[in-house]
Amino acid sequence: MLELYHFEPAANSMKPLLALSEKGVDFVSRQLNLEGRRWEQYSDWFLKINPDGQVPVLVHDGKVITESTVINEYIEDVFPTVPLRPADPYWRARMRIWTKFVDEYLCPALTVIGANFATPFAQKIDKAEMNEILSRIPLDGPRKKWATVSSTGYSEEDVADARRKLKVTVERAEASLAEHEWLAAPTFSLADVNAYSMISGTERVLPDALNAEVSPRVHDWLRRMEERPGVKKAMSYPGRMRPPPPQAA
Amino acid sequence: MLELYHFEPAANSMKPLLALSEKGVDFVSRQLNLEGRRWEQYSDWFLKINPDGQVPVLVHDGKVITESTVINEYIEDVFPTVPLRPADPYWRARMRIWTKFVDEYLCPALTVIGANFATPFAQKIDKAEMNEILSRIPLDGPRKKWATVSSTGYSEEDVADARRKLKVTVERAEASLAEHEWLAAPTFSLADVNAYSMISGTERVLPDALNAEVSPRVHDWLRRMEERPGVKKAMSYPGRMRPPPPQAA
Repeated sequence: MLELYHFEPAANSMKPLLALSEKGVDFVSRQLNLEGRRWEQYSDWFLKINPDGQVPVLVHDGKVITESTVINEYIEDVFPTVPLRPADPYWRARMRIWTKFVDEYLCPALTVIGANFATPFAQKIDKAEMNEILSRIPLDGPRKKWATVSSTGYSEEDVADARRKLKVTVERAEASLAEHEWLAAPTFSLADVNAYSMISGTERVLPDALNAEVSPRVHDWLRRMEERPGVKKAMSYPGRMRPPPPQAA
Repeated sequence: MLELYHFEPAANSMKPLLALSEKGVDFVSRQLNLEGRRWEQYSDWFLKINPDGQVPVLVHDGKVITESTVINEYIEDVFPTVPLRPADPYWRARMRIWTKFVDEYLCPALTVIGANFATPFAQKIDKAEMNEILSRIPLDGPRKKWATVSSTGYSEEDVADARRKLKVTVERAEASLAEHEWLAAPTFSLADVNAYSMISGTERVLPDALNAEVSPRVHDWLRRMEERPGVKKAMSYPGRMRPPPPQAA
């Protein structure tokens, strides 16, 4: 029995959705926050599954695996038939340098950028209700984020720094894609899975940062990703985030 | 040919030193910043090896592997005879959750705490010399850190937050060691290697945060670590950092 607790097919939730779809592994989808339900990741029933109050979570025969990047390595360890880690240890290391960079450098930057889009919505929440929600958030990182989002939002300086980090990431990806067909190696890997999951919405939201002129190789890589049956399957789960329409060459 | 570029046996440099020592794998030690040489990680010769200007770096038959956590997974992929990853995928995932937590939560906190110890030394450096050094630091994270360290140092608020994060880490480790003999699993793993590398100096520097009363299981785990031949071997490389003297029971 394999169950995946996830949000819409974007960001961290997209990572295992995409890895499982690429591998053709069947799983039971347990999607949170659907149909107007909010903050379900901090509800009592979910905190019993993951006391950190974070999605995605994989439950495999009763064993709970958290952290999207770790989940994808686990999926690879358990279902290796369609490999998403390069066979060569050197390229495997290159893959892990990318998944680490996405987690430690890109993801916090996108959190700041994305959080500010949520500020107008979060500011409308009743103060007492918001404080009650904040009191249920177990990890200090997300709690701080929602405290900021629901009050002042992130400062212009923070957002500018986040945009700079996105630019650095795009430059790194351009350089990497000049060396080989896929992001971290000559073969498709979890680096593509994880980076695409985080970055695919960016093109629509911040077209200045990522387009055919600024980053032709990243632009082409995004188009190749969109054509993959695994990406199409993962994107078929309900969600607000949709891939941008294919652009004419 | 296996070469490891590293600093003294502490923090990120300790991670691969300890993994290789535990495995009994022979390598050529290329230790930087010895005998009064400083900032060698930003020198032209080293930037040719790692353009990020970061240590440790593993060079295996000419192939360059960076990022200490990735290096240790690579060492495991290439030299699996003495395994440092649990055989069971579930415990392997638990191991990776710990190595990720060390990298993303503990390490930045210890950087703030450790950096402030360096402030009196860094403030004495001639401004022009310091600016020249800063101009050679490729990554914005370390550059920002040294700019802060050499001027004002981190604020009291930043240091208090870093100490709080250290406390959270110690509490997590106590809970984890109540479940099994080693940090992430019933068997010794890269979680122990990486966490010990980061945390072993803390006991001496911040005895309030980590001692036999506050954290008896972590205290006992540190003593068990110190008895390991791999730890003794790794600690035999030159360095300022030395393990605390064994305490009477």
